[in-house]
Amino acid sequence: MAGDLVLAIDLGGTKVLSCLVDGEGLVVASGKEKLDDARGPKRVLDKIKACAFEALDESGLRLDSVRGVGIAVPGAVDHREGIVIEAPNLGWRNFDVKRQVERAFGRPVVVENDVNAGLLGEAIYGVCRGCRQDVLAAFFVGTGVGGAIMVNGGLVRGTSGSAGEFGHMKIDKGGPECGCGRKGCLEALASRSAVERLVGKKSKTALKGGKRLTSKVLAAALRENDREVKQALEQAAKFLGIGVANVLNLLNPRMIVLGGGLMSALGWFLLPRIRKSARRHSFGVAFDDCEIELSGLGDYAVPLGVSALAAGKAK
Amino acid sequence: MAGDLVLAIDLGGTKVLSCLVDGEGLVVASGKEKLDDARGPKRVLDKIKACAFEALDESGLRLDSVRGVGIAVPGAVDHREGIVIEAPNLGWRNFDVKRQVERAFGRPVVVENDVNAGLLGEAIYGVCRGCRQDVLAAFFVGTGVGGAIMVNGGLVRGTSGSAGEFGHMKIDKGGPECGCGRKGCLEALASRSAVERLVGKKSKTALKGGKRLTSKVLAAALRENDREVKQALEQAAKFLGIGVANVLNLLNPRMIVLGGGLMSALGWFLLPRIRKSARRHSFGVAFDDCEIELSGLGDYAVPLGVSALAAGKAK
Repeated sequence: MAGDLVLAIDLGGTKVLSCLVDGEGLVVASGKEKLDDARGPKRVLDKIKACAFEALDESGLRLDSVRGVGIAVPGAVDHREGIVIEAPNLGWRNFDVKRQVERAFGRPVVVENDVNAGLLGEAIYGVCRGCRQDVLAAFFVGTGVGGAIMVNGGLVRGTSGSAGEFGHMKIDKGGPECGCGRKGCLEALASRSAVERLVGKKSKTALKGGKRLTSKVLAAALRENDREVKQALEQAAKFLGIGVANVLNLLNPRMIVLGGGLMSALGWFLLPRIRKSARRHSFGVAFDDCEIELSGLGDYAVPLGVSALAAGKAK
Repeated sequence: MAGDLVLAIDLGGTKVLSCLVDGEGLVVASGKEKLDDARGPKRVLDKIKACAFEALDESGLRLDSVRGVGIAVPGAVDHREGIVIEAPNLGWRNFDVKRQVERAFGRPVVVENDVNAGLLGEAIYGVCRGCRQDVLAAFFVGTGVGGAIMVNGGLVRGTSGSAGEFGHMKIDKGGPECGCGRKGCLEALASRSAVERLVGKKSKTALKGGKRLTSKVLAAALRENDREVKQALEQAAKFLGIGVANVLNLLNPRMIVLGGGLMSALGWFLLPRIRKSARRHSFGVAFDDCEIELSGLGDYAVPLGVSALAAGKAK
């Protein structure tokens, strides 16, 4: 069984996670490192190493029992070459992470965009397990809105590895400005940051003590019946539903998975509202023939997805 | 060579075309029948037969030299079963056209949506010939706006055969009402019908003699520098560019093909404007890495596409 072990590294905006995953998709050991403000290739590479050895130490195994390493990156990735084209949160640009980690670990390395990895995880081990060969799509909603698409069991990465930019689909021509400089993108209307902007300084509960509006803070405020937070989340759900409807109209998928920080903290509130809006804005039978579900694996979707790539279970 | 002959039937809104296509994708004979106002299964079936025998008579060949028959339908198709789920222009609903034509002709029959067939034609014989295995998309702009997607050399049909409904992607939340009952769909903003509505009764040139604003009438009016027609087409091009940008952001395709009546009559005017708008509204490198081109096969894209399916050259 040790021959089937792979090491999955999930690079987030604020932390690095490592998981040792066995052939059945079980996490046998894990590690975690915070990313401090100093980023850049070398710093992050050191964190990857530290995090990997935490998991190995916990398991009592050595690096040479690991068949391969998968790295999930929040940014644009050239999957074939293993190069990170751009990952602003990590301070990486055209960084050959595959070669660097292969040199450090002496094991083969695959690199994938994190949302792609998340959908793959759900397709193999999670909520889409039964329909892996169908058309599948995922929305990961957090600070931004990411997306991913699978067809016939494989990820659709596109010509330059940037397929699935659901967050920059334009759904409201006259809408608010997005971080990308354009107007009316889904991300500007329905991400956690968009909710933060909508709530503004109006909400007393949410801003008590000058807290940032993380997904957890928003969930707590909603539980305390904060009116501004509730309205902002309702509006975000409507727009997410329009984004989901567009994906239904374009791809007619069997399943759409909703994941990411905002969905994991507030899915119970957002999901029924997203479904209602998606039904209203979609065409023909596409809504009826699609299951719209929350992520089944939560924080494990991304590491399990890259682990499957590292184990050669998916392409 | 006769063993490689297939019969392609292209069912349009107003006419039926038949093409006898050889193994190299050359049309060796063809036929054409007008569809009068009386539609429905039996009437259209008679037209298909008449049209097919025109092509056979022209070629001097008999039906048994034909390997298979491909039928392209303007509507939702269950490709696996060969059933037309809905084709409003033909008066068909849940119509088993595959079985009917197989009974009439005694040859195997495949059925495909017309825009899917058009993209397949371009991928195998037309403007996308060199990049058939990449991600490809097509917009066919006429009375409505249809779409199609290919990945790894195969059509993406979706769960219920309705993938590629680009015309019902919402791009302007507060926009005009669409034929589907919703607001702000691309089709309501950028089809030939949308242009007709925009021009309204303002244009004297276009409406001279009470003509309907067909694509040809619009092209003639533009050549006479009709200001209203020009403005309406410029606006349609802007919205088509936003639709193209959304597809760039979602699929990161290698090529987007623009076809259909409006593009074939006015592509020289629309294409540069669509490109400009798509560049402005797309994210990252997706625009730079995609060729946006007019259909290379024009009216032959659809019949050549279904001929390839009938010949088993594509799935």
